[in-house]
Parts: sequence; C-alpha cells; structure tokens
Amino acid sequence: MRIGLDAMGTDRAPVEEVCGALECRPFLDAGDKIVLVGDEAAIRKHLDQADGWREFIEVRPTTQHIRMGDAPVEAVRTMLDSSIVVMAQMHRDGLVDACVSAGNTGACVAAAQMYLRRLRGVHRPGIAVLTPTFHGPVTICDVGANVNCRPQHLHQYGVMASIYARTVTGVQSPRVGLLSVGEEDAKGNDLVKRTRELLRDDPNVNFIGNVEGRDLFRGACEVVVCDGFVGNVVLKLIEGMGASVIRGVLAELTAANPAHALEIKQAARTIVTKYDFNEYGGAPLLGVGGICIICHGASDHRGIMNALRVAKDLVKRQVNQQIVQQLSAGAEGANA
Amino acid sequence: MRIGLDAMGTDRAPVEEVCGALECRPFLDAGDKIVLVGDEAAIRKHLDQADGWREFIEVRPTTQHIRMGDAPVEAVRTMLDSSIVVMAQMHRDGLVDACVSAGNTGACVAAAQMYLRRLRGVHRPGIAVLTPTFHGPVTICDVGANVNCRPQHLHQYGVMASIYARTVTGVQSPRVGLLSVGEEDAKGNDLVKRTRELLRDDPNVNFIGNVEGRDLFRGACEVVVCDGFVGNVVLKLIEGMGASVIRGVLAELTAANPAHALEIKQAARTIVTKYDFNEYGGAPLLGVGGICIICHGASDHRGIMNALRVAKDLVKRQVNQQIVQQLSAGAEGANA
Repeated sequence: MRIGLDAMGTDRAPVEEVCGALECRPFLDAGDKIVLVGDEAAIRKHLDQADGWREFIEVRPTTQHIRMGDAPVEAVRTMLDSSIVVMAQMHRDGLVDACVSAGNTGACVAAAQMYLRRLRGVHRPGIAVLTPTFHGPVTICDVGANVNCRPQHLHQYGVMASIYARTVTGVQSPRVGLLSVGEEDAKGNDLVKRTRELLRDDPNVNFIGNVEGRDLFRGACEVVVCDGFVGNVVLKLIEGMGASVIRGVLAELTAANPAHALEIKQAARTIVTKYDFNEYGGAPLLGVGGICIICHGASDHRGIMNALRVAKDLVKRQVNQQIVQQLSAGAEGANA
Repeated sequence: MRIGLDAMGTDRAPVEEVCGALECRPFLDAGDKIVLVGDEAAIRKHLDQADGWREFIEVRPTTQHIRMGDAPVEAVRTMLDSSIVVMAQMHRDGLVDACVSAGNTGACVAAAQMYLRRLRGVHRPGIAVLTPTFHGPVTICDVGANVNCRPQHLHQYGVMASIYARTVTGVQSPRVGLLSVGEEDAKGNDLVKRTRELLRDDPNVNFIGNVEGRDLFRGACEVVVCDGFVGNVVLKLIEGMGASVIRGVLAELTAANPAHALEIKQAARTIVTKYDFNEYGGAPLLGVGGICIICHGASDHRGIMNALRVAKDLVKRQVNQQIVQQLSAGAEGANA
C-alpha cells in the first residue's frame, strides 16, 4: 500500500510531517510506502537526519504551495504543481491508495472532488470528525465540506459516517442522531424535518431521532448528522470551548489553592493529552473516489502519524466499497 | 410598573416563582407590582408563608397549564385560560408592562407573536441569550425563535441584540460578529453571505465581520448573530459541554489527588455559581410589542428574580423604543 502525505500542510511544515511519517514504521507492512509530497530540499533536510527511511518513505518533489488563506477552488485550478493537487492526481492515477493533508481544507476538498470524483451513488462528499467526549468518541458529519445541504446529502452522511465510525471505533451498530433544536419529531428547520424520514426509513442506519447540542456530551449516540455549516460551527465551538473551560477551571482551582498550582498543572497536561485531537488522526472526506484524510493545521507529528494509520486502515477495511454497496442497497430498497 | 410572572413554568413550579418574586422587593420602586399568574391555591400555599407580600405581589388565577411537551401553537390557540396565554393578553391590554415565563419556550413565543404582534419595522422576533464566558458575557441572537431565517432577519438580530447588550452589560458599542465557518468574506452558506452586506452597511451596528465557533470563547465580540437553528444548537452545546468538561476535569483532578477531593469539590461549586445561567436572568424575545423574558425550565428562585430585575430594566430603559427608532433610521438610510 502507498499513502501520499502532503508535506506542506501543518503550521510547522514539513517538520511535523517528516517526523510523523518516520513514526509510522511500526504499523507499516512490508512494501508499504509513504510518499512525502512537497518541497524536496526542505523535506530532505529533516529526513536525512534519520536512518533507514528509504525503505518506507519516498519523496515526490513539487514547487508550489497552497496556503491557508488562498481561495480553494482558484488555487486548485491554477497551482497545478502544488502538493495538494499533485497528490490528488497521484491518487487518481493509482500511484497512491490514500492521501493525507493538514493544509487548506477547502483546497483538499476541491482537489479531491476535481480529480477523484464522487463514489457511485454519492450526492455530495462530507467530512467526518471523531470528537473526544467523556462518554467516548462521537463522529460528526459533515463539518464543512457542504454548507448548503439537501435532505439526501444528510441521509448519506448518516450512512457513510456509520460505516466510518464502525471501522475506526469498533462499535457494530453506531446510533445515529440528527442534530436539531428539540427531540420531538416536529422540531427543526425545513432541512431537518425532511431528512428525518429518509434516515428513519433506511434499515442500514441505526437512527435514534433528533438529538440536541447537549446530547453530544451525554453519550446519546455515536454519530451526529448535520449540514456542513452547523457542523463546522459546532466543531470549532467544541475546540474553543474545551480549551477555554479547562483553562478557566484550572485558574479557579489554582486561585483557591495556590499551594497546589504545580500538581494542578500536571493534571491539566494529562487531560489535554487525553482529549487531544491529535490522537484521532484527522478527518476523512467521505464519498469521494479515494481515501482522503484532512488534518488540523495545528497537528503535530502524532496527529500526522495517526492520520496515516487511519488512512491505511480505511483502505484495508474497504470503507469505500462498503459505502457504495450500502448506498446501492438503499437505492434498490427505495425503488422496490 | 407591573410585571407579569408565569407561576407554572419552572420544573419546581410554583415554588421557585413565588420565592423569586418575594426576593424582588429590594429593587422594586414604590407602587411596582409583580403579578403571579397561575394556579391560585398552589401559589397561595407558598405565598402565605411570607409576610407583607400584598404590598408588591398580586395573584391572577388561571385554570389551565401548558406543559413542556405540548405543541406550542396548538396549545396557545386552545388553552385560553393557561398562564402563558392569560399573561400575554394582560400585556396586550396594558395590565402589565412586561412578562416573564420559564414555561414552554415555543408557547411563549407563539403567545407573544399572537397577542403582542411585532414592533414596527421588525420582520421576525428573535431570542437573545447572554452566555457567560471567561472573557465576559456574549449575547447570542437568535437561539430558537426563528429556525428558517432570511438575511433581513439576521440583520435585525444584530441591531436588536446590540441594543439589548448595551442595556444590560453597559458596553457602549458592542462588537457584532456573524457566526460562520471562516473569517474570510467568502466563507459561509448563502444566508450568511447575503447577511454580511446588510450588517456591514448599517452604521448603527459595530460589525466586525464573520466569527467562528471558537471565537465565542476568545472575547472576539460581545454579540453573535446567527439563525435560530444554529443558535439553539450552539446554546445547548455550550450548556451540555460546560457541565461535561467541568465534571471531567474535576474527576481527573480528584483521581490524581484523592486527598484533595473536598477542596476540589468546593472550587467546583464556586465555578458553577460563577457561570450559572441563573445569574443572567432569562432571555428576552426581542422584536415583539412588549417585554417578554423567557427563562430556562431549570431556573431557580435566583434565576426568576434576576429575570424580573432585567424585565424592569428593559422597560425602564425603553429598549423597544430604541429598537423601533434604530430600525426606522436604518430604513430611511437605505431609502436615501
């Protein structure tokens, strides 16, 4: 298996990418390769400090670099020798089986849609994110690929995210909740009301009905379906609020017991590690004709390593074949 | 001034309502009355235990009770002797100057729209909630009155929530952010993109552009504008996550230092009090022809007391007159 890795994506590129790739060795099988795509000189500067990397790492040089602030579609159309575009082309041409990037999310989505197309039967791809909670991980889909959704899109996010959650968390029949403003059937905006029936009528989805914002942290379900606008707001809120509340609580505790400042700080470190997004290895863009994992720009080497591990897993477990099968079974059921 | 209080709303009605009303005495002016609306026998049972309540409390008996699970519009149409409907009628007839309820939110919104109509120039009323953060309170509008919004609605939420935030927090020119999926102008769904121009072109709004979920906890702005679906998801997420993260952090700390369990528990109590929604006194439904404050069903007597205090303040500071003036000034500006 060959996995492409955009070496130019993280805030500290290519250091975190090179280190993350090097750390993959233990879980790679014989013949597996990671292909680092990007500025060759910068990559080699870090790579050459390690021993034995040639056995499982290759470098594919590129000369252009799509940055976080660049307009995604425009960048993907014009910067044809950028790491993101080259990697998508390599995936299309079968030179890699999966790709991982911590770069401009919009550009990753645009490149994947342009070069890999959609899986058969998929209306619109969606990004699924595993969020750590005290009740275990919850998968939210979509978190930003598709900000103007239709009911069919949300239904398919339920199908695809269930398959993904089962693959990475081992929960056999993940409970799927539709994010809304109340548990009752009648609650929600037009989009949610029209999506409910589709999810309810699909025997392949373990649909539990509407869930509310607070249910995400109550262990109510393993998969939350929402449109990409709402999902992105929710994801960033969780990120910002988690950091803020933890900081605030620790400040209060330290103020109350200055003598314990040091041990509170240590406990804080444990918590932050435990609920660190880097442990979850990026978010797949589900529904495209390939395996594309998008990582947080602030990912460190562990985040990159975990994303590569998940990418390998999704290829091996044939997640895309499962998606196509399930969607076509659903379509036949609907026609029957 | 006379303020109506639905005595049947909280989870522990009418105890919290009666206690909350009794606690208002210190901030009432001579002649001010609180009118408790609901089951007279139940109210009097608690009221009669107190002394001197007749000077500032009246009871308006009703026989029906809209419950949390009732379908709002249907309930308001048929239960004409319910506390929520009677209170709205009293407000319409000038028998009270404001009303407060911790009951069924949808029914409060429906009753207010039916009996109080909209303020001149207002397209759709919106609920504004003050959320505690470590950087100070942030007002989010709308959080659930209007789940299918148009750009004009969001624009007016920016205007109305600014006036409300100024009135209750004292910030002279609150910064207004539009909740979206990225800071750049081009980011967002169709609704957000079309709302941006309206907010930017209104000289009465201190518009700072798009904000993301994480900015709510960074002190980026004092007012966040969003549609009622997104706002409701966000509000409930904040509520659920705040409780969950605080509990989780304290559990980790206690596990790390069992000897300090007691003082950690005490610190937790301080934190919970400090960021308790009861301190903020309910959420006004902005844009209707009256002052309507909606409280959390889990409100305690302090929550009710604070809501009555805020209601008095909004009447006194002529918030509705300010809204009408500002919206008509904006409309004239647009026509000029």
